[in-house]
Amino acid sequence: MTTLLLHLQGGVDEHDWAVRFRAALPFVHVLQHTDAYDPASIDYAMVWKPLPNAFDGLSNLKAVLSYGAGVDALLQHPHLPDAPIARFVDPDLTARMVEYVVAQVTMHQRLHTRFRRDQTARRWAPLDPPPASAVHVGIMGLGVLGSACAAALNGLGFAVQGWSRSAKALPGVTYFAGDAFGAFLATTDILVCLLPLTSATTGILDRSLFQKLRRSLPGGPVVINAARGGHHVEADLAQALTDGTLGAASIDVFAPEPLPSTSPLWALDNCYITPHVAAVSSSAAGVAYFARMIIAHEAGAPLINLIDRRLGY
Amino acid sequence: MTTLLLHLQGGVDEHDWAVRFRAALPFVHVLQHTDAYDPASIDYAMVWKPLPNAFDGLSNLKAVLSYGAGVDALLQHPHLPDAPIARFVDPDLTARMVEYVVAQVTMHQRLHTRFRRDQTARRWAPLDPPPASAVHVGIMGLGVLGSACAAALNGLGFAVQGWSRSAKALPGVTYFAGDAFGAFLATTDILVCLLPLTSATTGILDRSLFQKLRRSLPGGPVVINAARGGHHVEADLAQALTDGTLGAASIDVFAPEPLPSTSPLWALDNCYITPHVAAVSSSAAGVAYFARMIIAHEAGAPLINLIDRRLGY
Repeated sequence: MTTLLLHLQGGVDEHDWAVRFRAALPFVHVLQHTDAYDPASIDYAMVWKPLPNAFDGLSNLKAVLSYGAGVDALLQHPHLPDAPIARFVDPDLTARMVEYVVAQVTMHQRLHTRFRRDQTARRWAPLDPPPASAVHVGIMGLGVLGSACAAALNGLGFAVQGWSRSAKALPGVTYFAGDAFGAFLATTDILVCLLPLTSATTGILDRSLFQKLRRSLPGGPVVINAARGGHHVEADLAQALTDGTLGAASIDVFAPEPLPSTSPLWALDNCYITPHVAAVSSSAAGVAYFARMIIAHEAGAPLINLIDRRLGY
Repeated sequence: MTTLLLHLQGGVDEHDWAVRFRAALPFVHVLQHTDAYDPASIDYAMVWKPLPNAFDGLSNLKAVLSYGAGVDALLQHPHLPDAPIARFVDPDLTARMVEYVVAQVTMHQRLHTRFRRDQTARRWAPLDPPPASAVHVGIMGLGVLGSACAAALNGLGFAVQGWSRSAKALPGVTYFAGDAFGAFLATTDILVCLLPLTSATTGILDRSLFQKLRRSLPGGPVVINAARGGHHVEADLAQALTDGTLGAASIDVFAPEPLPSTSPLWALDNCYITPHVAAVSSSAAGVAYFARMIIAHEAGAPLINLIDRRLGY
């Protein structure tokens, strides 16, 4: 009998998932990680923030199923088995991310920080926000999430440009690949980070990057990080928001989380903090997705949305 | 010779308009209101916040050309002549209004006020914002601006509904006409006012209306007013934002403007004040529009975008 082991930590209700998986996969034996089981009998291990012993003895694994879209933490697990890793690609999660990014980009395009400071001072000082067509939104990372954000921002009239390791063709997106990073930054007013976290992208949002952004938006350029906290250098970000290198930032992810109460970011009125809520998946969507994947794979179909360990995403 | 009189007050640079009109209409005699002229010779009067004597002696007027999209103030001018009134319909202005409304709606959908209060308290308290599809945005007034906002919000996945005096058919918009106002409010989470200001709509955004809105959005319902300050009752708005009847409001228009420094709205952290900048037209767009209209009308074509004085818009 096909066997699925759940190793879901970090505030996820594993029992709820087990109940849902049993309903969706009546012919699969679904185990929680606290159950007694023979590790060699496990076909699939679905994980979220797996414990150090999560993979011990899983010698016959067909696949690791990652609930997270980002697998940076998973790839550093010291006992990650050699099985294929399939990650969760969730249309709901993508839609939520688009909503977060659109809300942040339009807020900054409409000069929210400036008008909020005016309000605090009871100051009536009209200033026309730039039209969307004059605002260059630069998206770093154009996978499923970045591509969907680019399309939505395009539909709203923004001038969208993208940068990623390898060139891609997306309608309406001016593309910069690899070495053209400097040219990408020099023409970007609002930077959106949706990169995977790898050794090459850790700390990429630092002071030297902030200084290279275009300064045409009133107040200064804006950085939005909805990827991983490891992408930004927190001290550099706080400094840039204080000295005017950046006009504002919207940050949903931090290293570590929860963001410690001692972080300088909390007190900055031009830093918009959300507690990693940009895009959250539902257990219903996760079960439906992985149940379909297991059924298809058991019927002989290849796994989809596999991770390339060498690239790290 | 065809004669155009400019009567542009209220901070508009009339001289700049005159120069632009002369370039666009070389066969038209363009006058500023401070020039000496024979009032009986004027064919067209283009106005913005006209002085009490603006229309004196204009006995042969072919049309009044209104720079404003809203004509509420113009219709109350004591000496408004009986000529047709054509108003400015500007694709740029429409695009700016859509950008303002999208920015405000998405900000509130993403629970900005709640996360900002958490940030002030250095509190990390994740809460999933509702998906756009679960948020009912109710648009009051579905003319050019309202229809464009409905289409954009629809494209972003919001559940859009509309209310206006007469029923209209817009794709993807649940429509409530006339007497169905109560049903419209009872199913609206975020209310967007884009109505014309008439005797029937003055003060329509009052306490009793706020109490009828749906209470499904965390924090409470939201009101966005980008039409005219006369639509909302300021004391009711301040009270509703204070006692929780409303979760938040975004207000771009006030009566009077500038908003007096004594207004209670300035100090409310859940009231987002902008100084009437939602949608501003450019003189270039205005000149192009009215120059085309004058050329077409002189060639025998009917005027377009005419005001119905009985309806008030």
